[in-house]
Amino acid sequence: IKRVAVLTSGGDAPGMNAAIRAVVRAAASQGIEVVGVRRGFSGLHRGEMHLLGPRDVANTIQRGGTILLTARSRTWRTPEGRAEGARYLREWGVGGLIVIGGDGSFHGGYHLQEEHGIPVIGVPGTIDNDLYGTDHTIGYFTAVETALDAVDKLRDTGASHERIFVIEVMGRHAGHIALDVAVAGGAEEVFIPEDEKPIESVVEIVKQSVEKGKKGSIIIVAEGYDGGAQAVGDAIQAGTGLETRVSILGHIQRGGSPVSSDRILASRLGEAAVYALMDGQKGVMVGRTSGGITYTPLPETWQNSKDVSHDLYRCARVLSI
Amino acid sequence: IKRVAVLTSGGDAPGMNAAIRAVVRAAASQGIEVVGVRRGFSGLHRGEMHLLGPRDVANTIQRGGTILLTARSRTWRTPEGRAEGARYLREWGVGGLIVIGGDGSFHGGYHLQEEHGIPVIGVPGTIDNDLYGTDHTIGYFTAVETALDAVDKLRDTGASHERIFVIEVMGRHAGHIALDVAVAGGAEEVFIPEDEKPIESVVEIVKQSVEKGKKGSIIIVAEGYDGGAQAVGDAIQAGTGLETRVSILGHIQRGGSPVSSDRILASRLGEAAVYALMDGQKGVMVGRTSGGITYTPLPETWQNSKDVSHDLYRCARVLSI
Amino acid sequence: IKRVAVLTSGGDAPGMNAAIRAVVRAAASQGIEVVGVRRGFSGLHRGEMHLLGPRDVANTIQRGGTILLTARSRTWRTPEGRAEGARYLREWGVGGLIVIGGDGSFHGGYHLQEEHGIPVIGVPGTIDNDLYGTDHTIGYFTAVETALDAVDKLRDTGASHERIFVIEVMGRHAGHIALDVAVAGGAEEVFIPEDEKPIESVVEIVKQSVEKGKKGSIIIVAEGYDGGAQAVGDAIQAGTGLETRVSILGHIQRGGSPVSSDRILASRLGEAAVYALMDGQKGVMVGRTSGGITYTPLPETWQNSKDVSHDLYRCARVLSI
Amino acid sequence: IKRVAVLTSGGDAPGMNAAIRAVVRAAASQGIEVVGVRRGFSGLHRGEMHLLGPRDVANTIQRGGTILLTARSRTWRTPEGRAEGARYLREWGVGGLIVIGGDGSFHGGYHLQEEHGIPVIGVPGTIDNDLYGTDHTIGYFTAVETALDAVDKLRDTGASHERIFVIEVMGRHAGHIALDVAVAGGAEEVFIPEDEKPIESVVEIVKQSVEKGKKGSIIIVAEGYDGGAQAVGDAIQAGTGLETRVSILGHIQRGGSPVSSDRILASRLGEAAVYALMDGQKGVMVGRTSGGITYTPLPETWQNSKDVSHDLYRCARVLSI
Repeated sequence: IKRVAVLTSGGDAPGMNAAIRAVVRAAASQGIEVVGVRRGFSGLHRGEMHLLGPRDVANTIQRGGTILLTARSRTWRTPEGRAEGARYLREWGVGGLIVIGGDGSFHGGYHLQEEHGIPVIGVPGTIDNDLYGTDHTIGYFTAVETALDAVDKLRDTGASHERIFVIEVMGRHAGHIALDVAVAGGAEEVFIPEDEKPIESVVEIVKQSVEKGKKGSIIIVAEGYDGGAQAVGDAIQAGTGLETRVSILGHIQRGGSPVSSDRILASRLGEAAVYALMDGQKGVMVGRTSGGITYTPLPETWQNSKDVSHDLYRCARVLSI
Repeated sequence: IKRVAVLTSGGDAPGMNAAIRAVVRAAASQGIEVVGVRRGFSGLHRGEMHLLGPRDVANTIQRGGTILLTARSRTWRTPEGRAEGARYLREWGVGGLIVIGGDGSFHGGYHLQEEHGIPVIGVPGTIDNDLYGTDHTIGYFTAVETALDAVDKLRDTGASHERIFVIEVMGRHAGHIALDVAVAGGAEEVFIPEDEKPIESVVEIVKQSVEKGKKGSIIIVAEGYDGGAQAVGDAIQAGTGLETRVSILGHIQRGGSPVSSDRILASRLGEAAVYALMDGQKGVMVGRTSGGITYTPLPETWQNSKDVSHDLYRCARVLSI
Repeated sequence: IKRVAVLTSGGDAPGMNAAIRAVVRAAASQGIEVVGVRRGFSGLHRGEMHLLGPRDVANTIQRGGTILLTARSRTWRTPEGRAEGARYLREWGVGGLIVIGGDGSFHGGYHLQEEHGIPVIGVPGTIDNDLYGTDHTIGYFTAVETALDAVDKLRDTGASHERIFVIEVMGRHAGHIALDVAVAGGAEEVFIPEDEKPIESVVEIVKQSVEKGKKGSIIIVAEGYDGGAQAVGDAIQAGTGLETRVSILGHIQRGGSPVSSDRILASRLGEAAVYALMDGQKGVMVGRTSGGITYTPLPETWQNSKDVSHDLYRCARVLSI
Repeated sequence: IKRVAVLTSGGDAPGMNAAIRAVVRAAASQGIEVVGVRRGFSGLHRGEMHLLGPRDVANTIQRGGTILLTARSRTWRTPEGRAEGARYLREWGVGGLIVIGGDGSFHGGYHLQEEHGIPVIGVPGTIDNDLYGTDHTIGYFTAVETALDAVDKLRDTGASHERIFVIEVMGRHAGHIALDVAVAGGAEEVFIPEDEKPIESVVEIVKQSVEKGKKGSIIIVAEGYDGGAQAVGDAIQAGTGLETRVSILGHIQRGGSPVSSDRILASRLGEAAVYALMDGQKGVMVGRTSGGITYTPLPETWQNSKDVSHDLYRCARVLSI
């Protein structure tokens, strides 16, 4: 293998640049060249490619976003689009493609491999942490930290006004961020898509919380919970009459300089992706599980789901006493 | 004067604790005792008061929110409510009241002084910076910094996706925060209540910005601009067809540990408020203007408005070229 | 078991308050009272104790330091001192003691248990991460983040001046912090006590780095590496003639609001410590290994050492190419 | 005037990039081209120059350091070196030079103007804030914030151990940073070069502080105070016997993303520098004083010194009661 290509796809996540850097430098250390593809699969079928050397990724490990850009692509969903992409990869003499993204992106890469025989390795980059086959995904730690920082700020003002704050964090299908933020933020209650408990339960919890003398309450809601934070806030306001504010944190959770855990995970996995291609692996996602590198066939990453920690869910309840 | 009382009122602002601390310690340095009133005027007419010594405010200078809590009070708007408050202040032997808050709070204090002869000094504490009589208000610098931090994060993700981000910052009646954040955040455009330019103008600006090769655009909107960020975002989406995201930063701008400028301003003004009472002043707000302490009659603080810097508004335009 | 006591001991670590809070609230959820001991073993043999209820630990999860204070104690090293402590614990009706700290603190607790039969559970709280029996220690993640933030800042100025920065991070006996910071900070080289490679090797690395066109270099040194950062800096200056600056980060790494990973780990382990006492366990440290709670006999925590990740050490080298 | 050149010189300061960006964009808005000079005067006499367009400074406003690099130059101190620089500037058709830096850098620019008739405008960029002719210098606000963040962290650990922390901040000739950090950090005492009070005075202050029940003390020392933090720490340790730690913050104060105040100041002054050249001004520094742009002849910037605020110095004392 003389050349590999790398792209970022789907929603951007802090640490993607650290992963690109790791791919480029690990490859260089093995005498392999790296072709960077801009704008994900959208750029791939248009041939937006250029060589990336070790110096090109200098001073990027601490940067949020992705220097390779990312975009959605409808064309890639067509066999014609993928054929175009494959043609470009062959023209550039690329012996393998590394896809940094979530399961949708892996899907796109898997089709390419199946149809055109180009080995594809997935690197889990998404803030949601909802990928089977790795304990954590690149970007997750930073997203939690950003949300937590917001919760800390809202608690300051919530406590001063003795108000209820209902805070919506990212997670369309999974409550990983919500649960971590709830425990770390000392929240009174957390709503996640994995447990469709009735919204009314929160009313009792907030009432008890006030009776216990708590100044202000923090309720965390994953965006994927039915109705979202607004519905929870409305229920509390209606059920308790207490002043309730809803705050939807939104896209700030995607940005910012990655925290150390994301940079280190990205460094390890970017390196592992290059070695996997060299070892002749294909169609797998590199992940990190229980402290070791693991390889999960790409289809398993979207066929399986990753549970939130039931233990932590229980812990959140106990500690909000 | 043997004793003074202090309260925080209206929306909380980072640095209020630094101001309380300064009042308590400056008073102690002059042999004056301080009575802390909890929950603003609402607590005052209910007599929620206690002595605050220098050690009680230790380790609070860096804390967001207000240790004295704050609340709205309908009762205070009635002469009966204010009479109750006056009675409590006299019972506690208080010779003057320091009100940390915005112009609504100064109004409440001014009535008390007029009706019951208790000297009142205002300290400008509000994130909006819309108070006549001081260059800056306590909390403003931190709110700008928090909003700017969010803008920096959104730019990371906006640039990666080549998206437009329309970001709403606080400022119901004034564009101070919006303007500072726009200049410091390198925004393409800013909408403030002080200049009701047509919303459509933004469409042309965004189009040009794309033509110039800018990756992603940042538009800042003060919440007081007609229609807010949502209207601006809708106009851009409709007028350009470009992917546009709206982000409303909300209450996080009120919280967090105060930045140095707010702590220092609060320290200076809290101290000045005590000395003003000792000098026999009453019915004035202490402020800081052009590097010196100034005293503005309370009614002037709500009768006048403070302009945004036209110079900076122009500068924002020039630098977004 | 009706009552348990909790203390923090040794160097403080961010997240200790989250651990105290978890102990108090998990106990309360089981109908158990908690006695807080101030100033570690020093306060224990003097009986500095008081009841801690769930509200007493409100709003502490985000605070750095330890609300129970910590101190060194020579008296505790004497059988008489420990007898005094045991007497106080019995007076207060305490059925078990939870010690949050490092292996020195566990030693102190173990003696108490051996001599006086009071069950002791250890909770790993130290920024150094050098405790056998847990993947990570409470405080470690925050210390790495603080050091990394400093490295990011130093790289800004180092790159502008094209200088070498040699940065010393904490870790008297272990290179865990240094290694994480080196990988996450994109350092050119890292020196840890676990690998006593010759200091001169760095000269060649820095020279090559300059030849490759790198603007400025970052070298990380664990304080426990022979000679520390100063020796490394002197060697570089002498060997290359390049402008070299030494920066010793010091105690800032101990402070600050804990990051989410430390708060969550502390919450889990504080809770687990209470349950361990209820289950009749004694003389063990609760830890978290490969995603589960583990129990390690206290003596093993100081008889064994925890290796740095050789894999990550290798990765650091590869990615600095 | 068709072209102007810009360089950064001396120690780097956060906000220098925002100033460069403002120069480039304000010039572009007036149809003027900008030549960027790399490595300050060192690069100028070697002709390290290139055109800088508005897109070249995109996404730099939030970056620490300086994209134009900075360096010391002995050659520039010779007439021959300056003649070389003048020759390059004429070759490039440059009608004026903007120097972003401190008084040493202004000196270098002034000589060029005197000897070769090229108009020079100074922009105050230095963290020390010790420049006559402007209320604040670019980089100062960020340096204070960085130092304050460190002080907040050290207070956490200092309070937990009930230790004294003596913290040295930057400021070789001036106490501006030290004073702001002392007030904002709630320090017990501050030592600045402007007031050579005897070091022993601190011993009494620390003793009293302990008697008042303070948990830990924070002492701030400007690096320019005779003996620095180490001398102060030694005096305290010797005079009180209390555990005392010395922390020298060092170069981290130069780095990091600039805070809003620095970005705004840099934006305003960079713009003003371009307009000053267009107006035919030469040999002046643009500054901001009492809310307006001011122009100070360059020699005055090094002939005069800027006092620290005596008012604030007094305030620091009062509030540490």
